[in-house]
Parts: sequence; C-alpha cells; structure tokens
Amino acid sequence: MRKNYVLALLLFLDFLNVEAQPGSMIPLPSPDLHKPLKSVMEAFAERKSVREFDTMSFQLSDLSQLLWAANGVNRPAEKKRTAPSAMNAQDIDIYVFTAKEVFLYDAFFHAIVSVVKGDFRQMLAAGQDFVKRAPVVLLLVSNLERFPRGTDEQKKQWAAIDAGMVAQNIALYCSAAQWRTRPRAFMEVSQLKELLHLSAAQEPLLNLPVSY
Amino acid sequence: MRKNYVLALLLFLDFLNVEAQPGSMIPLPSPDLHKPLKSVMEAFAERKSVREFDTMSFQLSDLSQLLWAANGVNRPAEKKRTAPSAMNAQDIDIYVFTAKEVFLYDAFFHAIVSVVKGDFRQMLAAGQDFVKRAPVVLLLVSNLERFPRGTDEQKKQWAAIDAGMVAQNIALYCSAAQWRTRPRAFMEVSQLKELLHLSAAQEPLLNLPVSY
Repeated sequence: MRKNYVLALLLFLDFLNVEAQPGSMIPLPSPDLHKPLKSVMEAFAERKSVREFDTMSFQLSDLSQLLWAANGVNRPAEKKRTAPSAMNAQDIDIYVFTAKEVFLYDAFFHAIVSVVKGDFRQMLAAGQDFVKRAPVVLLLVSNLERFPRGTDEQKKQWAAIDAGMVAQNIALYCSAAQWRTRPRAFMEVSQLKELLHLSAAQEPLLNLPVSY
Repeated sequence: MRKNYVLALLLFLDFLNVEAQPGSMIPLPSPDLHKPLKSVMEAFAERKSVREFDTMSFQLSDLSQLLWAANGVNRPAEKKRTAPSAMNAQDIDIYVFTAKEVFLYDAFFHAIVSVVKGDFRQMLAAGQDFVKRAPVVLLLVSNLERFPRGTDEQKKQWAAIDAGMVAQNIALYCSAAQWRTRPRAFMEVSQLKELLHLSAAQEPLLNLPVSY
C-alpha cells in the first residue's frame, strides 16, 4: 500500500518534471491573454533574428508571457501545449539562463524551478559574446525517452522538429512584443549536459537569447 | 562569354528554385497585412492539431496568406523570410498538394509553380484518410545541399529544426484564422521523392493538411 503511494508520488513528480526541492519553485504570474501586442500579420512581417541585445533585466511577468507562448499549457483539461510534438510526447523542456541562476520551466505549474545558481550563459554563447548580453537565454532540451516508439534516427528527427516549433513560438512572441531574439544551434553541449545533470537521452538542441 | 551567361542564368534559376516552364506559374495576390485575425495571444491559446478537416476548396487569397506566413519573404531587400533557417540556408521548400495538381511555392515571386497534375494527397495520407479530405496539404522538403557546411548528421538536425519552424508558422496562422491543421511526419517518402523528382539531398520532413 505504502509502496504504491510512493510509486504514485514518484510518477507524479516525474510527470511534472520537478525535482522535489521545496521552496525552489517560483510561480509565474498567469499569462495575460489581453496584453497589447502587434497583430499576427505584423509579427510575421517583423520576424527576424538579431545579434544586438539589450542588457536590461527581464520582468517576471514578461518571462511568464514568453514561456507560456513558447511551450505553455493552452488546454489544461487535455494537458496540451502551445507547441505540438511528435506523438504528443511533449519532449521539449525549456531551461532559463539568467545572470544569477538557471531555472527549468514547469509548464503545468506555470512556474520556474531553480536548477543551479550562477551565470552560465557563456556555455550557450560558446564564444559569441553577444549572447551573454541578453538577460535571458532559453535552452531547448529534448528528452528522447518520452517518445513511446521509433528508431534512434526517427527520435532525433522528431526532437529537432519539436524544438524548431517551440523556437518559432518564441520568435513570433518576441516579434509581436517587439523584443529581440535569435535561434542558435551553437553551444557547449557537453558542458551543459554536465551542468544540468542531463541523461544520455536528453539533447540540448537550440538556445535563444531574448531581450527587450 | 556565352557560357558565363548560361551559367549565370542557371544559377539564377537554381536560386529561384523554379523550373523553366513558361506559363506554369500562378502569381499569388499580395499578402494582406491588415487581414482581421485573432490576436497573437489568442493564436497561441487556440493552437491545436486536429484530425477533422473541411472539404471546401481553398481560395487563392487564403493560400497566399498561408504560404507567406509559412515561409514567405518578409524583408525583400535582404531576401529574408518569415521563418529562420540554419546559416540562413533557406533550405525549406513548400509543395502544395491539391485535388487537381501539385505546386511548388516560389517565395521570391510569391507564386505557385505547377509541378505535376493529379491528386497525390494519398502519398501524404499514407493510410490516414482524414488527410485526403483537406483541400490543401503542404509538404515541407529540406534541400540539405543548401547548407554551406556541416556533417550529414548536423545537416539532418538543422533541416528538421527548420521544418519545425515553418510548420509552427503554419499552425499559428491557422489558429489566428480559425482554420484547421496538423503537422505530420508520416507519409510515403520514396513515392513522393519519385513523384517530385527530388534529389538524394532533398528530404520530405513534414506535411500539414489545411482546411477552413
């Protein structure tokens, strides 16, 4: 009986993708569906990738909008997201790198969870210093174990497609908000895997510096 | 001299990705940047993948909006697109499958070019009959030769990411227009490569049925 309870709790935590660290979770304000933004056609018209970033720190309410648009839960009753994924595997996790700390986005709690303290944006910059100017750099990591079937090659393809979809949500939200971003595949993958304690099945695929 | 001219013309045609078939190109109306659509936040909130498609045929003006949003030229002076691509390789081509004909989207002319007459949507459906109901099915093909460098494995990853980005543009435009779509990796790849005379470097990656 007790064993079942522990198992259920572990499955629940695993499902939420949250480490059991009480106090390390920062709830995000609810996304504001009425926030004034550019129109959809303007967002497409003005979508671009830049290399010049502003250093002004990011407000939590803006991080909330950005993460929800990127890969938030838009249909809570069905547990479904703003970005599709192959076989609804929901394989993409978003890590949020700031000047002080790295967080993991928990879409179901709409919260960020502390992963490690410190500024590790240089692992994402990998020598391209403009990346370190951005107050927030989002790292998209696919967990290939979440695909219920498929060959290794298929899983890698699906993971990359799914990362592209989340990245384009970010790009279009930034365009609509008149913020700056750029999707980048370049980064220090092995350093990042060690820093974030990623498993062999977790693949960092893209990072996106974001600023006002 | 003459040889250089022919070479330049061939490079130009190759760049435009257009077969030299006079009369087979159908210009699309200019995209309407002021078209009334849902807001960006509503587009994210209502983004979903469906299996139920309407059979009503698609207007050319709507196809224009959809293809431009998907991967159109949004910065003509810089020859840049609504979707980013690795190293700006612009590797994704969009084929438009209808009940009567297959077209290739030429983003720089904002036109569709006839590729083959006939209804070949079953090659995309691959047994999932709901796909054949949609009046338009978009096929995203990456041309891996457009990447100026990279290993085969890297190119495959970039191609899949780039396809995901174009697919999400389609999904969000459809959400904003209250249309129906679904990204699908499932299809008859070898039949499609033969039908469209694709090279070994051209990879069909995703298809998206679209309907009102």
